[in-house]
Amino acid sequence: MTDYLIAPSILSADFARLGEEVDSVLAAGADVVHFDVMDNHYVPNLTVGPMVCKALRKHGVTAPIDVHLMVKPVDRLIGDFIEAGASWITFHPEASEHIDRSLQMIRDGGCKAGLVFNPATPLHYLDYVMDKLDVILLMSVNPGFGGQRFIPGTLDKLREARQRIDASGYAIRLEIDGGVTVDNIAEIAAAGADTFVAGSAIFNTNDYQATIEKMRSNLKHL
Amino acid sequence: MTDYLIAPSILSADFARLGEEVDSVLAAGADVVHFDVMDNHYVPNLTVGPMVCKALRKHGVTAPIDVHLMVKPVDRLIGDFIEAGASWITFHPEASEHIDRSLQMIRDGGCKAGLVFNPATPLHYLDYVMDKLDVILLMSVNPGFGGQRFIPGTLDKLREARQRIDASGYAIRLEIDGGVTVDNIAEIAAAGADTFVAGSAIFNTNDYQATIEKMRSNLKHL
Amino acid sequence: MTDYLIAPSILSADFARLGEEVDSVLAAGADVVHFDVMDNHYVPNLTVGPMVCKALRKHGVTAPIDVHLMVKPVDRLIGDFIEAGASWITFHPEASEHIDRSLQMIRDGGCKAGLVFNPATPLHYLDYVMDKLDVILLMSVNPGFGGQRFIPGTLDKLREARQRIDASGYAIRLEIDGGVTVDNIAEIAAAGADTFVAGSAIFNTNDYQATIEKMRSNLKHL
Amino acid sequence: MTDYLIAPSILSADFARLGEEVDSVLAAGADVVHFDVMDNHYVPNLTVGPMVCKALRKHGVTAPIDVHLMVKPVDRLIGDFIEAGASWITFHPEASEHIDRSLQMIRDGGCKAGLVFNPATPLHYLDYVMDKLDVILLMSVNPGFGGQRFIPGTLDKLREARQRIDASGYAIRLEIDGGVTVDNIAEIAAAGADTFVAGSAIFNTNDYQATIEKMRSNLKHL
Amino acid sequence: MTDYLIAPSILSADFARLGEEVDSVLAAGADVVHFDVMDNHYVPNLTVGPMVCKALRKHGVTAPIDVHLMVKPVDRLIGDFIEAGASWITFHPEASEHIDRSLQMIRDGGCKAGLVFNPATPLHYLDYVMDKLDVILLMSVNPGFGGQRFIPGTLDKLREARQRIDASGYAIRLEIDGGVTVDNIAEIAAAGADTFVAGSAIFNTNDYQATIEKMRSNLKHL
Amino acid sequence: MTDYLIAPSILSADFARLGEEVDSVLAAGADVVHFDVMDNHYVPNLTVGPMVCKALRKHGVTAPIDVHLMVKPVDRLIGDFIEAGASWITFHPEASEHIDRSLQMIRDGGCKAGLVFNPATPLHYLDYVMDKLDVILLMSVNPGFGGQRFIPGTLDKLREARQRIDASGYAIRLEIDGGVTVDNIAEIAAAGADTFVAGSAIFNTNDYQATIEKMRSNLKHL
Repeated sequence: MTDYLIAPSILSADFARLGEEVDSVLAAGADVVHFDVMDNHYVPNLTVGPMVCKALRKHGVTAPIDVHLMVKPVDRLIGDFIEAGASWITFHPEASEHIDRSLQMIRDGGCKAGLVFNPATPLHYLDYVMDKLDVILLMSVNPGFGGQRFIPGTLDKLREARQRIDASGYAIRLEIDGGVTVDNIAEIAAAGADTFVAGSAIFNTNDYQATIEKMRSNLKHL
Repeated sequence: MTDYLIAPSILSADFARLGEEVDSVLAAGADVVHFDVMDNHYVPNLTVGPMVCKALRKHGVTAPIDVHLMVKPVDRLIGDFIEAGASWITFHPEASEHIDRSLQMIRDGGCKAGLVFNPATPLHYLDYVMDKLDVILLMSVNPGFGGQRFIPGTLDKLREARQRIDASGYAIRLEIDGGVTVDNIAEIAAAGADTFVAGSAIFNTNDYQATIEKMRSNLKHL
Repeated sequence: MTDYLIAPSILSADFARLGEEVDSVLAAGADVVHFDVMDNHYVPNLTVGPMVCKALRKHGVTAPIDVHLMVKPVDRLIGDFIEAGASWITFHPEASEHIDRSLQMIRDGGCKAGLVFNPATPLHYLDYVMDKLDVILLMSVNPGFGGQRFIPGTLDKLREARQRIDASGYAIRLEIDGGVTVDNIAEIAAAGADTFVAGSAIFNTNDYQATIEKMRSNLKHL
Repeated sequence: MTDYLIAPSILSADFARLGEEVDSVLAAGADVVHFDVMDNHYVPNLTVGPMVCKALRKHGVTAPIDVHLMVKPVDRLIGDFIEAGASWITFHPEASEHIDRSLQMIRDGGCKAGLVFNPATPLHYLDYVMDKLDVILLMSVNPGFGGQRFIPGTLDKLREARQRIDASGYAIRLEIDGGVTVDNIAEIAAAGADTFVAGSAIFNTNDYQATIEKMRSNLKHL
Repeated sequence: MTDYLIAPSILSADFARLGEEVDSVLAAGADVVHFDVMDNHYVPNLTVGPMVCKALRKHGVTAPIDVHLMVKPVDRLIGDFIEAGASWITFHPEASEHIDRSLQMIRDGGCKAGLVFNPATPLHYLDYVMDKLDVILLMSVNPGFGGQRFIPGTLDKLREARQRIDASGYAIRLEIDGGVTVDNIAEIAAAGADTFVAGSAIFNTNDYQATIEKMRSNLKHL
Repeated sequence: MTDYLIAPSILSADFARLGEEVDSVLAAGADVVHFDVMDNHYVPNLTVGPMVCKALRKHGVTAPIDVHLMVKPVDRLIGDFIEAGASWITFHPEASEHIDRSLQMIRDGGCKAGLVFNPATPLHYLDYVMDKLDVILLMSVNPGFGGQRFIPGTLDKLREARQRIDASGYAIRLEIDGGVTVDNIAEIAAAGADTFVAGSAIFNTNDYQATIEKMRSNLKHL
């Protein structure tokens, strides 16, 4: 049976009391904290950086923190996030001149390493790095722009990524980010995803626990 | 008598409970919230962006929020921070191709506009924009790098900036950022500053109110 | 029977009387106005921008205007050309950080959207965007450099692109740009192209109509 | 008596029949054709490049063409515009790493060379290049943005530039661009300008000749 | 029988007496001088440029000089190295906006042209340029960073590149760079490489000739 | 009596036997080795980097090595050259976002720090850093371009720089680079320079010692 992980994105949390929000969502059953970093260059927005990650650790968060770098270049921030207590660090292949090296930096820092694919980005960037990956993250919306829905074509892309992972023999998580809801999570899991980022679908509800339980329940019979 | 303003910098606050920190420091007598924005391009660090500013407003903060943009380019974030509830927006002249236009954007958005000068940046950028400024911010450390002390040469630079302001006839605040403490605040004020950013000097003490009162007390006899 | 389109490129027209040139070539039987935009960054030349496109519309041109963006980045100019009356907008995948998003912007603006492939650019950028494309443009010369001839290897690339289009089931035009002449147009069409950009081959002749008719005649028996 | 020059900007002309527009405005008494080049990098717009300049020459324009480069970097386009028949070439000092060298390139190409100052740009860039300048162009609006009015502070800046020119002993034109109209041209000339770029003030009237004559008439008694 | 080439990298030579070092290594049996160019932008280091290449030619070096450009952009330096006496010029596909054109420039300059692939770079960049290549260089370490060992996955990548070359029918060299030693050269050749860059493996030994002979000896029975 | 320093530039030496060239020129009486670093971004050429500097030290050079960084950005290479054995490190103020910080890095690394001024660069960058400078270098040609002569206006600029140094009370060297010869060195020294970079004027002669002695002799009576 697949081990599914629910990863609420802090982008939809209340940044004025982020520690409390993260505590709540973890208490409600979330597995991983998804931490979205934007630099106003790779994407047209600027969110939060290493100091905020470090503050969560100091606040007492012990769950894995999954740092998604929507930044370019990536190498200096990789180092900063390793020091700030990140658990996973993922970046976009278009954002690093030296992908293999950046992946190595992440693992050398004791973190799990991953690549993120924009909706239109081909999967060929995976061809020569499967042995260096712990996670593949597929974007099902365009990162950095608000108000978008799950792009349906992502389901086929998930199936292809799943095939590549299974063929490789490596234990690589297949994560999905963008427009995941209670209603479509089962279909997305059926296509191969095992790790689910959800922002507003969790934080915009009144009862985080009920929502996360409903997600798990919808994943149960797969 | 000069109207001095104390502006604690959120960089030294606890980001896991930022709303509470800001509430505390304002209750302790601070006048302005200093909000440091870094983009990992203009400076080698990435801090917090518009969503965090907006969260403070939603949390109930009504004091002026003084947004210091250590980013390049500046225009898109100016727009985002106007929407996010900024009160003041300052940027570095080297970071905008069109300084006059960027200043106009800020005022057109209902905010107070300012220029920030790095320790080595000449004051000549002021020559043709005094009528568009509400604040001049002098850096007394190099922004984006940690563990620095107040650069003594800044005192002379403050005196020159004060002369320019007085000669202009405009009501422009003269703000100082970097290494300001209870001990040197009087000397800095004597050189012409009227607005004081302080980070660790306030947040690293146990009693915000006592610290701020001591600062005000040291400013009283000027 | 394939519906072939002839798209004269304004690059070879007389820019001092561009409206008249465009009127003439349309009267001579052309279907589409091909509008080449270069920004001196993506290619080493700077040509014409949105104001010139808008002037053509105001002049009375009602034929489709096919805007080929040889610029980087693309998003701001996409917005400007939508407002300026463009009908099609194509861009190079290497020139946008967020290809899926840029394609959506074009369609949301009421235009047909397309990707352009330099001679050496692989077709894998098509893998996850076929449902968002109205046109695929293959360059058969290197854009932005003068005096080049049709690169023969493009014929195989056309056949591969044609296969992808047919397999997708979508109605996507296959356009070719660079070194198209009366003499090679039939061979190019046989390889799968259905839309033909021609610059000097049309504008450097005395009789636009005779040239275009000869092109159509050479396409007739395919 | 000062020799005043009127330089209509093609930005407000009809680009569909640019040759005719330029002929008309020259016949109406204009002295110089002002040619605005934007590259969507130095300013947020893209206008026209060397091919359009060359087309005007081929069309028969013999008046001086005054090319204002709102581009970054400048060196490649300087070469292209020399070949395309430019008479004057001006650029922004912030847009060249090697200002002295770029000015030399222009003169070596047989053109008059100049620097352009944005509204907020200090005049200190003039300190070591007066012997290499044929023209100084002050912007009285922010280039690349529409719908702006003459910035009043420019009058003082004109007076300072005029003083520098007179003190240098060199024959350097002092040109002004942005919001110049029949109504304010005398005041601008009184502040020291001798060359006047005007766009909509000329091209948006029905009678180019009447407008230009009124401008000259308002300059007569200075 | 395959014609193997040994290409010592000057990066490990003594730059204070480079001519002598190159003479020695050629006298010791090396076939090609591998010349590593880094610009501190594409990779985090700056090494040597065209003047040093030209000095080697003037010094009397007649062997092929194989220039590996770890720079971005590439076009200006391609021209400079053609003039400086380069024999082969290779560059990274991610570093040129116009790969086909850059390859043509190299051949037009009388040099052999090639593409270099970083460890994680997919081979799809080869799809439409096989007829323009004289050499394919696979990196078996990340260029620009010191102290790295041969990445084992490169062996599979070599086999794929070999297949592409054989299928193409073109005479294209397959070069390998990074961590090549006397001990692994046979295994690397067995995977398809025919040209071997070696730096410290040669220059850090006392006897260049003995090392190169041992390499050849280990290649003999393939 | 002023202590004049002669600093031959390695740009005109034979790079195939650089150690020997440097030994010769030092034996001939030179005081300082001037080391020109270009990165093909700040200037259109790429020369030599830290490894070549380190090789000179390992070769036995003990004279001061004066590293002139014609690169952008500067901070990473500053660190590399400190490790490589540089004695002085100078950079262009336009090439660093944080001039004060870069100067501190150099001094913290045990080197002498300086700023370089292109021919057109104003001296105002000196306003707030005199206490952090060991050397001011004025370019009397445009760096990175060949075949240029001494720009005469530099003499006035030298006098202004000399005045600033004398007024500051700091012991700051005033260095000149570009077109210095035996014939004009006395005039240049009279204008205030005390350190003279000379390339072809020394290395293109047959007798380095005779040339350097003639330079010193021409400086004697000042």
